[in-house]
Amino acid sequence: MLMGELSRRSGVPVATIKFYLREGLLPPGTPTAATRASYGEDHLRRLRLIRALLEVGEVSVATIRTILAVVDDRSVGVHQMLGAVQYALGPRLTPPTDGDPHWEAAGREADDLISDMGWIVAPEAPARTLLTATLAALRRTGSAPSGAGLHAYAEALSRLAASEVASLEPAGSPESPAARIALTESAVVGMVLHERVIIALRRLAQEDASARRYG
Amino acid sequence: MLMGELSRRSGVPVATIKFYLREGLLPPGTPTAATRASYGEDHLRRLRLIRALLEVGEVSVATIRTILAVVDDRSVGVHQMLGAVQYALGPRLTPPTDGDPHWEAAGREADDLISDMGWIVAPEAPARTLLTATLAALRRTGSAPSGAGLHAYAEALSRLAASEVASLEPAGSPESPAARIALTESAVVGMVLHERVIIALRRLAQEDASARRYG
Repeated sequence: MLMGELSRRSGVPVATIKFYLREGLLPPGTPTAATRASYGEDHLRRLRLIRALLEVGEVSVATIRTILAVVDDRSVGVHQMLGAVQYALGPRLTPPTDGDPHWEAAGREADDLISDMGWIVAPEAPARTLLTATLAALRRTGSAPSGAGLHAYAEALSRLAASEVASLEPAGSPESPAARIALTESAVVGMVLHERVIIALRRLAQEDASARRYG
Repeated sequence: MLMGELSRRSGVPVATIKFYLREGLLPPGTPTAATRASYGEDHLRRLRLIRALLEVGEVSVATIRTILAVVDDRSVGVHQMLGAVQYALGPRLTPPTDGDPHWEAAGREADDLISDMGWIVAPEAPARTLLTATLAALRRTGSAPSGAGLHAYAEALSRLAASEVASLEPAGSPESPAARIALTESAVVGMVLHERVIIALRRLAQEDASARRYG
């Protein structure tokens, strides 16, 4: 299809498609004339992926570029892909250098929780630092969650993660490179957007709980 | 205390404190001389709140300003405060105007879920739009979660929200305006940072599930 049709079918304006092409988010089409190119279904799918990550996932253009490079790298397996996407999503937090007691206590709490849950997690996993930084900030502001509350969250999310991850790759390997990319794209969307689903549901549940107690 | 001590005790550089004062995030100190002011424990607490929201919560300065105005408004009750904070956190998503079938189906799915859960939620709740937009994007990319998966998330988060919201206000009203502000600040930090805790735990649980299946 030509760019006009790609724009109509994706709902993305032509100027925006050109921006994605310039930024390297969208691979170039097949040239059909000096100033024309033809686009396929894979361009349409990629456009929907970019839009979902940008608009609903609030992921930056730079991070999307990093994520798409992983999606397009055929040598990366599912486990490595998940890790690379998590790493790209950040946030990039650095431990304080001055031996902050809140950070140290939070780090021990995070390590203990991971070990209590029996989770297999790399020492340098960015989510471990995110958990530590968040628990440290909660301690600093006097709003640290109870150990029981943390365990309840961890148990609930662990059950959900197992079934979600199991659905990332169907039985057997994808037949073609194109099928592998389509699968990886849907895994990425699932990872990023399910976080937004969880946040939305948590806020709705909170509004309900607050309406019942204080409304 | 003088600004130097406020900086040392909070770990926030003097230039940053001056920026927060200019931006209206931090209330001015009590003037003690033409170029000096004195700061109290409430300034220290407020600084820790700003830092937690900015650095760990990744909340923008503009959004923090909106949130702090709600925290400082004595006429706002707990339920209104929670709503105002949720609304400030966004994202601000607008439904498509062209009758997008994915959006319409996602909106029905969100409404059905809220009604199945028996949740009391305002029609204009931003979390309702966030849920609809996310489900619509997942549908567009062919990665929509199953109804059973959504319900499992909702059940788990509902249980957690009830106990979290119950802890927002201790028995009886806070004694003084200062105590009320301290309480509201800790509620805001809890709301924003517990979302980050959940995201961190979900990513850790995912890494574990992925290591076991594909690692």
